[in-house]
Amino acid sequence: MKNNSFTNQNKKQDCFDLIIVGGGPAGITAGIYAARQGIKTLLITKEFGGQVLKKAGMIENYPGFKEISALDLIKKFENHLKKFESQGKIKIAFENVGKIKKDNNYFSILTENKKEYKSRAVIVATGADPRPLEVPGEKEFIGKGVSYCVTCDGACFQNKNVAVIGGGESGFEAAIFLANFAKKIYVLEYSPYIKATMDNQKKAKNTGKIEIITLAEVKEIRGENFVNSIIYQDLKTKENKTLNVNGVFIEIGNQPATSLVKGLAKFDHLINNLDEIAIDPRTCATSTPGLFAAGDVTDVAFKQIIVACGEGSKAAMSAFKYLQ
Amino acid sequence: MKNNSFTNQNKKQDCFDLIIVGGGPAGITAGIYAARQGIKTLLITKEFGGQVLKKAGMIENYPGFKEISALDLIKKFENHLKKFESQGKIKIAFENVGKIKKDNNYFSILTENKKEYKSRAVIVATGADPRPLEVPGEKEFIGKGVSYCVTCDGACFQNKNVAVIGGGESGFEAAIFLANFAKKIYVLEYSPYIKATMDNQKKAKNTGKIEIITLAEVKEIRGENFVNSIIYQDLKTKENKTLNVNGVFIEIGNQPATSLVKGLAKFDHLINNLDEIAIDPRTCATSTPGLFAAGDVTDVAFKQIIVACGEGSKAAMSAFKYLQ
Repeated sequence: MKNNSFTNQNKKQDCFDLIIVGGGPAGITAGIYAARQGIKTLLITKEFGGQVLKKAGMIENYPGFKEISALDLIKKFENHLKKFESQGKIKIAFENVGKIKKDNNYFSILTENKKEYKSRAVIVATGADPRPLEVPGEKEFIGKGVSYCVTCDGACFQNKNVAVIGGGESGFEAAIFLANFAKKIYVLEYSPYIKATMDNQKKAKNTGKIEIITLAEVKEIRGENFVNSIIYQDLKTKENKTLNVNGVFIEIGNQPATSLVKGLAKFDHLINNLDEIAIDPRTCATSTPGLFAAGDVTDVAFKQIIVACGEGSKAAMSAFKYLQ
Repeated sequence: MKNNSFTNQNKKQDCFDLIIVGGGPAGITAGIYAARQGIKTLLITKEFGGQVLKKAGMIENYPGFKEISALDLIKKFENHLKKFESQGKIKIAFENVGKIKKDNNYFSILTENKKEYKSRAVIVATGADPRPLEVPGEKEFIGKGVSYCVTCDGACFQNKNVAVIGGGESGFEAAIFLANFAKKIYVLEYSPYIKATMDNQKKAKNTGKIEIITLAEVKEIRGENFVNSIIYQDLKTKENKTLNVNGVFIEIGNQPATSLVKGLAKFDHLINNLDEIAIDPRTCATSTPGLFAAGDVTDVAFKQIIVACGEGSKAAMSAFKYLQ
């Protein structure tokens, strides 16, 4: 009898009005709004920050902060949310979510640790993960020279030669950041064009350490215990070439982290040529009633911190209306 | 000849790629984004802040600042934008815009001082103005007891009796703010319900100075040189009643400041029962090519600072694409 009531109580505790999955700008903003609206809310994330943490340059376009590091901005976001946690207005769980299902009017959120949470509404704000290069050697050398996060791993390459794959904005920011540590940085770009801003191209040049190679298709990452080289094809001459590097930073864009809701929400492939969660851009509603999505996991046209925050706020207010 | 070239030069200076009209959260964010994208941009506003400046309570839902006054947040936004002005990346003009026209591919922005600026793209971010009550005495006593801005005028009512018209969130915030100065505050609400959050209702009660009157229809504002009373009808008893007050703060919502683009952009009346600029919610594009709109002047579903910022960012990025 006592056991039973304990179980019931436990079940009750794991049942919420709203569960927000994700702890980046969209998820945190949704959490702030939900907490202030008095919705019984759980926010589940493996960590705070999302892709923002991987940003190497300073952030100059989040209104209110002239210039702030990704880490500092995320810390401010996190502390803002935790104010409401300390007031008992929101719960936060640090877990990996494996799957989201809907039965009747309730959503089940299943974590990788086999925990189950239930709620009447869900906001998916899982952001995006780095897109892999998909060449031989990439997977096996992850953590042994291959990295998708220059701010996490860059400092390990003191006085080494490294390669950055991708000549877009984030590739250049990664290279400029790496110039603080590495001896020499190659930036390899598949297309004939550099897509980074002139500003970042100038900064890269000023380091005196960065060499840009366009029309370069990476074929393989090689090494023994650790990366020691990459092979790329020069697309002009069709020749295969070798660069001796110990680090390979892959910066070729992101792919939305949609796996949780595969089969549950409709995706949209048209806007950004990626499988993103299709949302009503006014309300952040998905094709499934009660399921909302916000930020880079959706087909929102622009992937920016301030846009993700605005979308998170919309999603929380829409969820509030839905719950009423 | 010299005169001519001077005139030409002047004309050149007044021609931009993008003109942003409005200096609230949407306009400032659009300005930050446009400046960083290297668009030749002019931002025109009569002042910075927009409706935010009229907000009486603390702001607790702009991510990154746990709790900040409207004035402080706007100052941070303004300084952020002015960083780019000091780098020559954006121009700012403090003027009232009277009208926006489009001839061929150019927009003309006509100020109330008869100045004319030209641009290839425009972002309208003019926000909203307080909605008037439209009762006898309202217009004639503006500045003589009638106010739409409690943060501007509240402190003038030290130890006086005042009325706040509107029992929504902003009405309650106004009343709580006024409790710092006034002797007694009446909050008059037309409907039978109070729409403010429980949190604000509690705060209001705790002041010990605020009396809520529901089902009250204001009929007239009376005075001699200055307001001395208001007449309202008690909708239960149909009786007219008098309150002796020296201040009347009108907090019955906003109306979008759309007059600049009447006839130029399509309006949408459906979403919020107000004539708002209809936008494509993905891009902030209006019905007129090259004309974008962001924030509370549009039919965006939620009027929030963080939402307006996100929309301003979208509008600037869409304008950038359009200009290319």
